[in-house]
Parts: sequence; C-alpha cells; structure tokens
Amino acid sequence: MQTEKWGMLELSVEGPKEGNPFLEHWVKGRFTGADEDVTVDGFYDGDGVYKVRFMPSFEGGYRYCVQGDFLAEEMTGEFTVTPAQEGNHGPVRVAEQYHFAYADGTSHYSVGTTCYVWNHQSDERIAETLKTLEETGINKIRFCVFPKHYNYNLREPRSYPYEGTPMGSSVLTEMNFHEYNEKENGSRWDYFRFCPEHFRHIEYCILELQKRGIEADLIMMHPYDRWGFSSMTKEADAFYWSYAVTRFAAFRNVWWSFANEYDLLSRKTEEDWEGYAKLVMEKDPYNHLRSIHHCFRMYDHSRPWITHCSIQGNPATANALREKFGKPVVMDEMRYEGNLPYPWGNATAKEMTRRFWDAACRGGYPGHGETFLSPADLGRVVNPESGECGSQDAGGPVLWWSHGGKLHGESWKRLGFLRQIMEETPGGGLMLEKDLYGILIAVPEAEKELAVKSYYLYYFDDAQPAYADIAADPDTEYEVDIIDTWNMTVTPAGTHRGRFFLDLPGNQYMAVRLKRKVL
Amino acid sequence: MQTEKWGMLELSVEGPKEGNPFLEHWVKGRFTGADEDVTVDGFYDGDGVYKVRFMPSFEGGYRYCVQGDFLAEEMTGEFTVTPAQEGNHGPVRVAEQYHFAYADGTSHYSVGTTCYVWNHQSDERIAETLKTLEETGINKIRFCVFPKHYNYNLREPRSYPYEGTPMGSSVLTEMNFHEYNEKENGSRWDYFRFCPEHFRHIEYCILELQKRGIEADLIMMHPYDRWGFSSMTKEADAFYWSYAVTRFAAFRNVWWSFANEYDLLSRKTEEDWEGYAKLVMEKDPYNHLRSIHHCFRMYDHSRPWITHCSIQGNPATANALREKFGKPVVMDEMRYEGNLPYPWGNATAKEMTRRFWDAACRGGYPGHGETFLSPADLGRVVNPESGECGSQDAGGPVLWWSHGGKLHGESWKRLGFLRQIMEETPGGGLMLEKDLYGILIAVPEAEKELAVKSYYLYYFDDAQPAYADIAADPDTEYEVDIIDTWNMTVTPAGTHRGRFFLDLPGNQYMAVRLKRKVL
Repeated sequence: MQTEKWGMLELSVEGPKEGNPFLEHWVKGRFTGADEDVTVDGFYDGDGVYKVRFMPSFEGGYRYCVQGDFLAEEMTGEFTVTPAQEGNHGPVRVAEQYHFAYADGTSHYSVGTTCYVWNHQSDERIAETLKTLEETGINKIRFCVFPKHYNYNLREPRSYPYEGTPMGSSVLTEMNFHEYNEKENGSRWDYFRFCPEHFRHIEYCILELQKRGIEADLIMMHPYDRWGFSSMTKEADAFYWSYAVTRFAAFRNVWWSFANEYDLLSRKTEEDWEGYAKLVMEKDPYNHLRSIHHCFRMYDHSRPWITHCSIQGNPATANALREKFGKPVVMDEMRYEGNLPYPWGNATAKEMTRRFWDAACRGGYPGHGETFLSPADLGRVVNPESGECGSQDAGGPVLWWSHGGKLHGESWKRLGFLRQIMEETPGGGLMLEKDLYGILIAVPEAEKELAVKSYYLYYFDDAQPAYADIAADPDTEYEVDIIDTWNMTVTPAGTHRGRFFLDLPGNQYMAVRLKRKVL
Repeated sequence: MQTEKWGMLELSVEGPKEGNPFLEHWVKGRFTGADEDVTVDGFYDGDGVYKVRFMPSFEGGYRYCVQGDFLAEEMTGEFTVTPAQEGNHGPVRVAEQYHFAYADGTSHYSVGTTCYVWNHQSDERIAETLKTLEETGINKIRFCVFPKHYNYNLREPRSYPYEGTPMGSSVLTEMNFHEYNEKENGSRWDYFRFCPEHFRHIEYCILELQKRGIEADLIMMHPYDRWGFSSMTKEADAFYWSYAVTRFAAFRNVWWSFANEYDLLSRKTEEDWEGYAKLVMEKDPYNHLRSIHHCFRMYDHSRPWITHCSIQGNPATANALREKFGKPVVMDEMRYEGNLPYPWGNATAKEMTRRFWDAACRGGYPGHGETFLSPADLGRVVNPESGECGSQDAGGPVLWWSHGGKLHGESWKRLGFLRQIMEETPGGGLMLEKDLYGILIAVPEAEKELAVKSYYLYYFDDAQPAYADIAADPDTEYEVDIIDTWNMTVTPAGTHRGRFFLDLPGNQYMAVRLKRKVL
C-alpha cells in the first residue's frame, strides 16, 4: 500500500448500518511515520462503510492503526509514502506573512474565481466548467457545500446534504431572499443523517480541481438559502462542521472559507463562528488555510485562527487591510464582470481587469467573477408581468458566478497574463511601495528593507498618460519594459537609470516594469 | 448718469501722482438709495486717477458722495439705477443651503472649468479662450490674479501686479517648484506700488466673462510661483488683498477663491487666512461667494466666512462633504481630462464625464479641466537629455488647464448636456437620496421631506447593466426616460409605477429619470 506525499490514503472498514451510524458510531485512525504522528477522526460514508483518511506530509514508511467502537480489535498495517509527483506541491500555506506558498516552497500567486454552486449542477455542466477552467490562469475557486437560493438561482440542486424532503421549488419574485433565509419552511430534514453522496460528489469536484492545480476554497456556510441549512441548531451545525471537515481535510487543495457573507447569517453569533473555528482547528490536522468573508461588516481578521483576509470590496483597500491585519489579503469579491442590474454584477471587462492589477500592485490577490445574462435569458428575466428574476427550468440562466459553464467575458483572459507577471517577480510576492498620487509602485516584499530595489512595477491604472516620468535610482541600471495589461503585451524599452521619460501609447491600463540589469 | 441693477457705476477723480499714491492717499464713496446705503473704498488707478466703484442692488434714484484726503470738498451727485437687462441675474448666492441662485432668484447650476492663467496670455489666446467658452456649457471659470510657475508653465506673464524687475526666465527641470516657491530669488518688486494695468486687464477678462454669463472664480493666492508673490510680508499681503478686493468687488460675477491649494503656501498660517477673510468681509460690501481650495489638507469649511466648499478630490466624497459642512460642494478639481504623466492630468473623457455626473448626483457641482499635450509638445517635453518639462518660448505648450485656448478633449462637450438635465430638475438642485450599493439615486433637494418624490434620477455610473430593476412608489405614475450621459440622448421609455424592469443597452454611463406624470 502506498501513496504520494500530500496525496491521500483512505482506509475503509465495514460496520453497522442500522440505527443512525452517523450519531451512534465512531471510527478514528492514527498514522505514524518517522516525522509525524497524526490521529484523525473517520466518518460514516453510508451502506455500512466507515472511512479514515490521511494526508502524509513526509516520505518514507508509515504505520496505521484504525479503531472504532464497533471494531473488536484495532486494524493496523503499514504503507509507504513516495515522493510527490509532478504538479503536486502540497497544500498552500501563508508565506512571508502576506503571501502564499505550497508546502514544497513553490510560491502560490492566488488568482481566484467564484462559482458558488458549479458543483451542484449537472454532470455535463460540471465537465464544461472544468474544461473552461483549464483555459484560464485561475488557480483557486470559491464554491459552496450547501445549495444556493438567490436571483437567477431558483433550481433545486442535484443533491441535498441531508436525508429529508425539500419544500419544493419556488419562484423568487424579487431580491427577497430574506423572506426565505433562516425561516421555517416546508423542508423537512434529519440534520443528523447526512447524504454521503452529496459529500462524495463534492470530493469528486475537489479532486478534479486538484488534478488541474486549482485550490478548492470551500464555502462552508452561506445565507442564500430556502431549505433551512442556514438556520440549523447549534448541535446540528457542530455535527455538520465535524463531518465535513473530517471528510474534506485530507485533500491537499482544500481551503476553509467559513462563510460567504457571514454577516447576513443573522442567527449566527460571533460565539458560533469562534466555535466552528475551534472545531476546525481540532478536526483538521493539516492546518488548511482559513478565512471568513463578509458582506457589510468585516469579521475581525486579526483573530488567530484566520490565516488570511477574504475580502469583499474595492481592491483600493488591499494595502490598508494588509497593514491592519498583518495577513495576506485575497480580494475574493470586488465586483464581477457582467450585465446584471446590480453593481456587484455589472462591471466592464476593463474595469474588472483594472481591479485585478490594482489588487496585485497593492500586495493583495485578485478574485474574478462573471455574471452575464444571455440575450435569451434577458428576454425571460426582464418580464414586468411576472417580475421573474430567474427560471427554475433546466434551460434557466447559466451564470459563471453561480453555475460555472462557459466564460463569456473578456477579463478572465487577462488573469493568466497577470499571474505570469506575478510569477516573474523576485521573491514570493509584491507589496505597494508607494501610491504616487494615483500611480501605484509595487516592489518585491522580500526587498522591503532595501532602499533601492531590484524590481519596480509602476501601474498607471485607468489613466491615459502620453509619457511616464519615472524617478529611478541614479546608480542602478534598469531594464525597462512597457506592459499593456489589457492587450497583454510586454515591450522592452531599453535600459535607464535616474530620472527618465518614457513614451507611452496614451492608452489606459499601462504598466512599466524596471528590472535591475544583471551585469 | 445711470447704470442697471447689479451693473457697475465707476466714478473717477483726478488726484496727486507724485510720491506713492497707493500708500499716501485714500478715496472712498458713499452710495445712497431708498433701499441701501453703501460706503466703499476707492483705489488709485495710476496716472493721477482715483476711482470709486459701486454695484447697486436696487432700482431707482441714488445719491453718491466721494471723499478723499486730497479733495478739498466732497464730490456729490445723483444717478439712476435701471432694471437689470436680459442675461443679468445679479451675483450668485447660496440658495437652499446646498445650492446656488442668482440674486434675482434664478437657479445657478454651477458647471465650472479651470484655466489658471488664461488671463495672463496674449490677446489672441485670450480671444480664443473666450470663443471656446462660448461653445461650452461652462458657467464658471477658476483663474489666478498672480502669474503661475509650474511644469508646462515657464513663460513670463504678459504683466506683473507690481512695479519692479522679474528674475528673468527659468527652465523648470523637474517637478521642483518648491525650489522656487517662497524663496528669495532674483526678482525685485515694490510691493506697495501696483501696476494698475495688470488689474485693469483682469477686469477686462472678468467683464468679458460676465458678458457671456460666466462667473469669474478669482484665485487670489497660489503657491506656483517663482517671482515671490507667494511669500510677501503680512503688510504686503494685506495691501494686496485690500487693493484687489476694492477693484474687483463691484463686478457682479466675481467669486473669491482665497487660494488654489492653500496648504502648499507653507508660509501662510491659519491666522493669515482668517485675516484675509476679515479683510474681504470688510472691503466687499456685496458679499460675493468665498471659498478656499486645498491640495492635501482641507481647510475647515465650517468657518462662517466660507460660503461653499471648493474641493480637490474624488466626487464620491461630495455628499459626505455636504453633510459635514452643511454648505454647497463644488468639486473644482477632480482630475482633468488629458494625457500628462501625472494622474491629476490624465483622465479619459469618459472618466471625466462620469465624475461630472457623480458629483451632480451627489448634490455637488462638477468642475472640468483639460490637460492635453499635443504631439509636437510631447516631442519637446519628453527629452531625457534636457529633462525639459515645458518650453518658455511663445510656441510652448498650450494646455487649457493653464493657458486656455482650444479644447481638444471630449468631456467638455457633455457639460452642457448635464447642465440642461440639472436645469430640468424641480426646485433648485439635487441631493443624493441613496447610494444603492453603487447605483446613485438623486432627488430634488426641495422635496427632501417628502416620502415620495416627483422626480428621481438613477445613475448607473461605470456599470453596464442590460436592464434596470427599479422600485418606484406603487401609487405614483412616472414618466420614464433613459438617459445616455455619454452619447447625450434622452429616450422616453413609457410610464411606470411600483417595481419595474427596464431594458437598457448594456452600455456604461447610463441614467434613468422618473418624472411624476402630470394628470
């Protein structure tokens, strides 16, 4: 038996299926190698099968030992952890305080997207989403464990996390999710009896992302609900968190996003969130990244369990948030490219791309999203008679932001280019050295203490300068490139030192890069 | 002898020309009608001529009485004030707390521009500027009494305010005005001996603006100086303010802008500014509008002498500034359309126009500016050898922002359209009712207290919505127009009530206007 480093070892044992196995039985495993000794909970996966999962962080020989209340004796054995294969860099960690790196030390320049419930769509749509992702530079995706109810999101999901009966479909006549959210409704669930298939399917999605080098930023809770999953009891919540974390933690590409817009989950208190955090810290021995995303009121990101700030807002705040919380800043939601009536979902491609660069130059990480209604959808949506804001039928609107599918916009095409520029920076990431009255000057975080840096990235934002007026170090020779962030070109512009003027094309979204000439 | 209401009566007397008449003699006048009794200082206008000016605010018969230290006896007489002629609405006043109206009650929707030293250019350039202004919707212009020294502003002015010798021309090799600003230099002036011609010429400019219905927002002091006018003694400053206010106050279209970027005048203290204010209040019997403009640190606009906030910054702050200071907010400087390397001077036309609308929808008033270097100028400016940032010769760069001349951009063309939309609002001006997560909803200030307004202006900013989702009062029928603020079209879109959806073209910079249907 063997697995690769940061791969997953899964051990299955047969056990009782009568009664409520989720509640009435337990199983756990201990994994011991030369460099680590890890004990983890196992879980019931249905049909009388209990599982224990483990992600090794070291190579070499390991022993395992599985115990369960229904096992007469411990199940033990040995296995070998082989070196990580190509493309497996391990889980992502915080690096250099404000940045990310995989466990093997490779820098991770996060370039994310949001597809809230791509995983709850049909097999065909999921395959399409994965194919689309392969064509982008995206290396992180935010999505939900629970299904979603909101404008343009009225269909039932492919599965439910619990055994029970949904209330049946519903037309959302306006922006009135609060009418459903956290209210009693027709749904009846047994919150102590999971549908393992729901979770297995999410694991399939996590794994497919993993194969493509994409981090799965799992949104554990969210308010856009008509089924009751956002208003469970404390006991049911704890049961859910334990089960989900136990199942998902051994996948190296998992990040815990505690909530989308936690502050709209009005029944949850700070005590609740802190309780979930305690639980995750206990149940996840691998210390995956943890964040909590807000709508109006930011969570206190200085809490020690939070590894990085997951932000909704204008990327112009990224550098201030870094300073305030002393952690990496991921601008997960900073408007989406699209054509919806709501400003969060109707930015132009150029504005979206501008926001990517703004976030990056301020030492943060950009998040993409796309919300285009097709002309056909528009015809149905803009219906003054019915006030319909989305269809429930299978042919209803497909917006990348929720459903995945195809990308129709233009900004996503620029993500890979930005990521490439980021990957070419010295050290593990950028920081904002100066906002020169609207010109952003980014430098390598690793050279923070140096008066003269080896690298400068000037970003001219939405301005249309006909030339740049740059004051570089007079004693350092720099190779200068003109970067068109929209047209994705890098044009060498000679070597310069000291103060120099540089002709620019008078277009928007230009950058100038200075790299110390290697003599 | 007669003048029209809010016109100007000027009385001249001969007097001594030996010694220093500015310092050694005085003259003053008293003007008495049935409704007012005003005493004003006069001034020495050179060549042994002393003048007293008066702007009557009422019609009918008046008496005047002029005294002077050199006059053996009072000079008295009578004159008639006739009704204001067409186009003469009197001086602009604050109205409805946050807005402006002329003295005759006509609303003034301020749509300004900045041409710092258009008045210090050649006769030909001045004529060209006036002609250009006629083609715009601009009804206010900011400009300086003193000449200006800055990038692209290296030529000597046509005249100086004082007798003396300028230091001679100078090349500005970088953004180093501080090297000159407020320093001893080669210039030698007699700060107590004005050049009346310098002021007479400014009066010519004020009058030409007046004929075109344009307010003259006179910048009395500014830091961009190589001659020493920004670093005079307290006594010289007081002498200057008294003389300038005495000369200019009787022109109905004058506004007092105490400074451009007062906070860069590092030798001036708050006590100095408050002193100038006291002086202006004493010397200007007509109470022209008073403001003081900043660069980094805003002046305390709650000071009672300040009639309105003259702001440098993003128009997104306009509504908050209204609330903070309880006064009209004029966004005099919110970037300029142009192609300079500096963000204050390289906004696109669309961004500039967006800012006009943003300011207006927040209940403020927009300020335009334009800073285009022509291709020919660029060739000379971007000179890494000389580092030259502007030419001193007559063929040097001509930027609207400083020199006037022609307009080359696109945003100015939209000013008239915006002003027309503003003029069609009920009452005297708009206020922001709500920022609906990025959609600005403006309503008439006069209907502030009403739950349901007769007029709503929805502004969708830089978004590209394919439709609008509007929640209007269910019991009120509104006539709806779709406004394309960039293409300057108003398209009727039927009547609606309650919540309704409205197809939009998916372009940026759209607005929707609701007007209560008159039954």
